[in-house]
Amino acid sequence: MPTDHTHAPGLTSWVASAQAPGCDFPIQNLPLGIFSTPGKAPRGGVAIGDQVFDISAAMAHGLLRGAAAEAASGPSLRPLMEMGRAASAELRHNLSALLAEGAHPHPELLHPQSAVQMHLPTEPRNFSDFMASYDHCHRLGAARDPANPLPPAFHHLPVAYHSRASSVRPSGIDVRRPWGQYLKDGQIVFAPTGAMDFELELGFWIAGENAQGEPTPTSLSDQRLFGFCLLNDWSVRDIQRYEMPPLGPFLGKSFHTSVSPWVVTAEALAPFATPLPPRAAGAPPCPPHLTSHRADGLAIAMRAALQTPAMAAPHTITTAPFQNMYWSPAQMVAHHTSNGCNLLAGDLLGSGTVSGPADGAEACIAEILLRGPIALPNGESRRYLEDGDAVIFTANAQAPGATPIGFGECRGTILPAHKA
Amino acid sequence: MPTDHTHAPGLTSWVASAQAPGCDFPIQNLPLGIFSTPGKAPRGGVAIGDQVFDISAAMAHGLLRGAAAEAASGPSLRPLMEMGRAASAELRHNLSALLAEGAHPHPELLHPQSAVQMHLPTEPRNFSDFMASYDHCHRLGAARDPANPLPPAFHHLPVAYHSRASSVRPSGIDVRRPWGQYLKDGQIVFAPTGAMDFELELGFWIAGENAQGEPTPTSLSDQRLFGFCLLNDWSVRDIQRYEMPPLGPFLGKSFHTSVSPWVVTAEALAPFATPLPPRAAGAPPCPPHLTSHRADGLAIAMRAALQTPAMAAPHTITTAPFQNMYWSPAQMVAHHTSNGCNLLAGDLLGSGTVSGPADGAEACIAEILLRGPIALPNGESRRYLEDGDAVIFTANAQAPGATPIGFGECRGTILPAHKA
Repeated sequence: MPTDHTHAPGLTSWVASAQAPGCDFPIQNLPLGIFSTPGKAPRGGVAIGDQVFDISAAMAHGLLRGAAAEAASGPSLRPLMEMGRAASAELRHNLSALLAEGAHPHPELLHPQSAVQMHLPTEPRNFSDFMASYDHCHRLGAARDPANPLPPAFHHLPVAYHSRASSVRPSGIDVRRPWGQYLKDGQIVFAPTGAMDFELELGFWIAGENAQGEPTPTSLSDQRLFGFCLLNDWSVRDIQRYEMPPLGPFLGKSFHTSVSPWVVTAEALAPFATPLPPRAAGAPPCPPHLTSHRADGLAIAMRAALQTPAMAAPHTITTAPFQNMYWSPAQMVAHHTSNGCNLLAGDLLGSGTVSGPADGAEACIAEILLRGPIALPNGESRRYLEDGDAVIFTANAQAPGATPIGFGECRGTILPAHKA
Repeated sequence: MPTDHTHAPGLTSWVASAQAPGCDFPIQNLPLGIFSTPGKAPRGGVAIGDQVFDISAAMAHGLLRGAAAEAASGPSLRPLMEMGRAASAELRHNLSALLAEGAHPHPELLHPQSAVQMHLPTEPRNFSDFMASYDHCHRLGAARDPANPLPPAFHHLPVAYHSRASSVRPSGIDVRRPWGQYLKDGQIVFAPTGAMDFELELGFWIAGENAQGEPTPTSLSDQRLFGFCLLNDWSVRDIQRYEMPPLGPFLGKSFHTSVSPWVVTAEALAPFATPLPPRAAGAPPCPPHLTSHRADGLAIAMRAALQTPAMAAPHTITTAPFQNMYWSPAQMVAHHTSNGCNLLAGDLLGSGTVSGPADGAEACIAEILLRGPIALPNGESRRYLEDGDAVIFTANAQAPGATPIGFGECRGTILPAHKA
């Protein structure tokens, strides 16, 4: 269901690699990010095929102009996020025209993605993480308490907590195994974690700002979604379990969070909108103030792969459907602001672990372990992550009649803990 | 126990109001803040008596120079926080010399506090809130579960959660009563809260930065404490109670947090250092990595007063001793970074509700109500806060031989909820 010409069937780019089958970044995607090249400061770019199109260089050539391009050309995408969805839609329109087959090619404005360094789209000002997958909550909850598998509020609101903004890092930064306090053989120890886990999530970058005390209603909350990324909410289960009652996760999560650096805009994902799944059997209806009359779900197939130091290539251990999420990103925005909390441009929200109902759709190791250790094709097995292990997330949005688009990768490798 | 000449006995200021008995801001205090005057941008200042000493104007007059004064002269104290404790100590030394009796008086560099607007010292980059009062936790916990009144980790670490940075506001900004979901007569409703509460806390602004993955050990963590303020962690108990399991407080706290605008520096509080109270009877020892060999506690008497629209003056309803806190601010910093989480200059930490053991030392209404409604001197009574009610925090640091210093006030008035 293309919504504008930027999704027109058959549209291709003069950048040849963008036409490769299975490419994450065809011209229908045009994700924005902050990149740098040797000796030059971080600046805004667009992923196209295996290249980055340099927005500030295109402006210097007179090919792009206007406030939206200006806002996307600096060291952070926050100025564009502040301008709201109309600005990013306008920029997308102009970038699509510049990069389309038939437009004058400008290879001098391209940098190979393999030759650039990617940065955060912007330093997140606040980071809130949700827990919006029925299957994630139900699977783990049923293992603890079969009679009450879900949080009491699960059907009434998207459960969430404030997470740590300062430790969000772009894909590729190694993850130091943290120390912390936990129960081991009945004793409380302070030691490196023995339960290093990942959580496969979708992240959302926020557009615009609601004034404090002034909620963004569900009818408008989709307009607060600037764009999307993959997010690894690295979690250490032993530390987390010990510290959580009653205030929730703290040091079990705050040591590191990884995000994929390309922001797939809400405009790029428009063709992949899909209704939320039906409510669970016997569940109460969605509260009126969180009821959306749009198709707010997104048809995105998400994958987590694991590569140990002994493996020649990553092995996919999770394949999870974002369209199964119980609450939508727009509902999360509406809930988050329903008490008047001011969401800011450049805030980051996480969906929570995106698990599906099937075996193989468990989107964190804690869930996988309910069926047993991870068996890897080279004969190794894993309970939690070991030093040197890399976790790589990828994803594709898919819908009938639409060119599939991807997110690039969100990768992190575990470094050994510091010595005592 | 004065530690330097800025606390010398008998030291007074040429600003006459700073010599008034009971004044919050004698020359021994010299708290820093960001103020503005009509038509002029926010900038750094020092509270002295009932006046504000203008740092940038003093620099323009050639009375102050150097990187520390420069860092304190702009619209945010974050540059000074980034420079660390040595810089703020140097600035304090210079300000003390300028403002001391005997120095050349410069009344032209003063503005009456009544004529300036105060701002946040800096937009907090991250805000984490602790729960470090034994009496707060034990009193509320015993009411729920007498056999297990404390969180399981309470004796082993200072329990904390990430809170919301964007909604922190300076004293004096009215607080909009939030809507939210909660249980009422057995039904889940979405309605304005009926349980508006305050929490009397001390806030700490962070100096310096530890790199991600590199903890600040307890032996150094006091050097990360730039300065202190009063903090009202406004809380709505009905919404909070419903949403908390299992991820902790979210919308029940994120609508508004108030802080007093003057930052009482760690240097100003040095004479009020005091050992932490003994551990609870039968409690395990403090873990070695959180054990401090300093006197990390602070002797601060904190007060909360309530003024309803029908009252002519505020009435003190809480008097609580900060020296009773079970964990110190420096221990909180060490715990927070113990997993490698990067604390940043300009981060804000909250102590959690500062309750004491005595009747009258309950530092939030939820605790007070365990003994019954609040009886006010004009015959009114209160369970939770009503629209138009104002809550005012004040505090004084006191120690034998030291000139007492105060914090100014942290005030907020409840506005009615928006209509449906």
